Amino acid sequence: MAIVTLITDSGESDFYVAAIKAKILSTNPGLTIVDISHHISSCDLAHAAFVLRAVFRDFPKGTVHLVGVDAAGNRGDVPIAVQLEDYLFVGADNGFFGLISDRQAQNVIELNKVNRIATTFPEKDILAPAAARLASGVNISSLGTPLPQFRKMTDRYVKATKRMIAGHVIRVDHSGNLITNIPRDAFETLSKGKNYVIQFGGEKFRKVQTNYNQAEQGDCFVMFNSLNLLEIGIYKGNASALLGLHYDSPVSINFEE
Amino acid sequence: MAIVTLITDSGESDFYVAAIKAKILSTNPGLTIVDISHHISSCDLAHAAFVLRAVFRDFPKGTVHLVGVDAAGNRGDVPIAVQLEDYLFVGADNGFFGLISDRQAQNVIELNKVNRIATTFPEKDILAPAAARLASGVNISSLGTPLPQFRKMTDRYVKATKRMIAGHVIRVDHSGNLITNIPRDAFETLSKGKNYVIQFGGEKFRKVQTNYNQAEQGDCFVMFNSLNLLEIGIYKGNASALLGLHYDSPVSINFEE
Amino acid sequence: MAIVTLITDSGESDFYVAAIKAKILSTNPGLTIVDISHHISSCDLAHAAFVLRAVFRDFPKGTVHLVGVDAAGNRGDVPIAVQLEDYLFVGADNGFFGLISDRQAQNVIELNKVNRIATTFPEKDILAPAAARLASGVNISSLGTPLPQFRKMTDRYVKATKRMIAGHVIRVDHSGNLITNIPRDAFETLSKGKNYVIQFGGEKFRKVQTNYNQAEQGDCFVMFNSLNLLEIGIYKGNASALLGLHYDSPVSINFEE
Repeated sequence: MAIVTLITDSGESDFYVAAIKAKILSTNPGLTIVDISHHISSCDLAHAAFVLRAVFRDFPKGTVHLVGVDAAGNRGDVPIAVQLEDYLFVGADNGFFGLISDRQAQNVIELNKVNRIATTFPEKDILAPAAARLASGVNISSLGTPLPQFRKMTDRYVKATKRMIAGHVIRVDHSGNLITNIPRDAFETLSKGKNYVIQFGGEKFRKVQTNYNQAEQGDCFVMFNSLNLLEIGIYKGNASALLGLHYDSPVSINFEE
Repeated sequence: MAIVTLITDSGESDFYVAAIKAKILSTNPGLTIVDISHHISSCDLAHAAFVLRAVFRDFPKGTVHLVGVDAAGNRGDVPIAVQLEDYLFVGADNGFFGLISDRQAQNVIELNKVNRIATTFPEKDILAPAAARLASGVNISSLGTPLPQFRKMTDRYVKATKRMIAGHVIRVDHSGNLITNIPRDAFETLSKGKNYVIQFGGEKFRKVQTNYNQAEQGDCFVMFNSLNLLEIGIYKGNASALLGLHYDSPVSINFEE
Repeated sequence: MAIVTLITDSGESDFYVAAIKAKILSTNPGLTIVDISHHISSCDLAHAAFVLRAVFRDFPKGTVHLVGVDAAGNRGDVPIAVQLEDYLFVGADNGFFGLISDRQAQNVIELNKVNRIATTFPEKDILAPAAARLASGVNISSLGTPLPQFRKMTDRYVKATKRMIAGHVIRVDHSGNLITNIPRDAFETLSKGKNYVIQFGGEKFRKVQTNYNQAEQGDCFVMFNSLNLLEIGIYKGNASALLGLHYDSPVSINFEE
């Protein structure tokens, strides 16, 4: 009952996702395939990394995550398998894996022993069979040549001083809720015994609530969500549309002396 | 091979659905998960109830249905498990379950023994583990405290007299077909040996057909669908757009003396 | 671990797809269901055929493919099961199966022994139980009466002479890439030792690249894709929008003497 998850930007009106699944099930029909999302914005590594980072640790250890976003990568990017935090990943060495964890990889392998024939569809021809074999218990080192490390893109950091935390919206979700990169622990450390003002767009808030339904329908709320990140929303409404905030909009918290 | 179904308004571009599935499979990797829909309109209990009511009885008895629409509910709504018509359901006690069946619940349990830690994501932290345990054979009464009944929202009724049936469009489907709440049995009882006129928008129909393909392409049809509800459509066309009818538009049948 | 795949135009906001899955799993809970797509354009047999033709052979032999696009068909079209290239298919005898393979069917059966009750939802009431039984090992001939052949729609052909190949765009994919019906083998045979000009819209190209990432971001590319069909795209861009080309737009290759 080993699990392979899929995250792609392929949508669901073409043959791409089905071809990946067919290859996985042809390699091992006993595997369980879970779709994380096929609606990542086209080639948007930040979107894909936000989603996968939020959820990969919820799966049982050993789960294999196939990343089919920008899978061709740039010229020279090779397909890789990565062991990280006791999970397995396959994807292109395009910088993506630096966005999902700060931890050191346990293994990085260039997937050059899976399919030696040139392909324009590496998700199907290289990543899918590699994922299926890893989920079936094949040793990662048998799939190719070790690399010292994967390439790393880096996220924008949150800036925190005693007086303020300055962050950004890192995801506008399906409902229009605005998820920022401001973590709960920084806020709790800095806010101890102090008043504070949370600012975004033209709005100012002086209170963080603890659950969605403490707001009345149509009211704006600010709270730490299940990822322990500051989230701004309008209860049963679309905060992005109504507040005019988008991906990368600034959000800050100022602490009073 | 027990089944857990999911119905949510979470869309498919975020981590929410994957987090629910990860929690279910972490609890019991042998369960089969079936997506009913993740494209319920945001917080639209009527939409969710129409879809789940139409399909829950098609699954094998004992199937567990997880309802992740308005799962936070209003202040004070608690998460519950419900046994109803030999099926199991988990969701918020927000009135939803009154919309899917007229039958008496066999069991209603407040889910207060599943996860005692406060959560802003009850679908993942309470409903998913509860669903997985129920599907694994755990007794419903071990998951919390019995409640006498769940809360009930009520649907608009169909009004029927000897002379007329007055109903409404309760769902515009993906193809633009208009599904009403007028049931076949009321129509058959009242129409015996009588002529009738079906009215909606500016249109009048004097005949109910028995299958979609009795209409020519582009023609309007009126028939009882697989749910035994009156459905209005345009064969291979979009009736909602072309007739200007929407959710809640009135539809009536007048019987001649 | 036998597989049933589904391809429909039902979308994912209604009960239709779940009802089909419920019927399959009620017939045999051990089957693996794979969604190929539920986002085929409404009643678009060309779209459905392109997708299924591209992927059905990637599944293990014996996989059952359920085609729920135009499943009511036209008046008189009957539901059929087809054995073709060692795969099994169920759908309406509406011409579709002529679009996915040039090979002779091994078996064609009118599905008149599955469910003798009239239905307006044949995907659920006839195709789903037939698919589940076929995937469970039931013999195709037990499901109905043999037919000599299925009905065949025919595709537009590619025209090829020594001097030119004239084809069309047969699919604009989710990313806006333009997939044509010009096959690699015709091109390779005719282009041997010759210069050539590929024309589409107002553009002319004199080179075919071998992988997506040989183009710079924003550049147009022409290559043979994983289906060995000529594909035109803009790397990390939307070729359909930017070049103004659509389904059925002409694409030609002229070979110099």
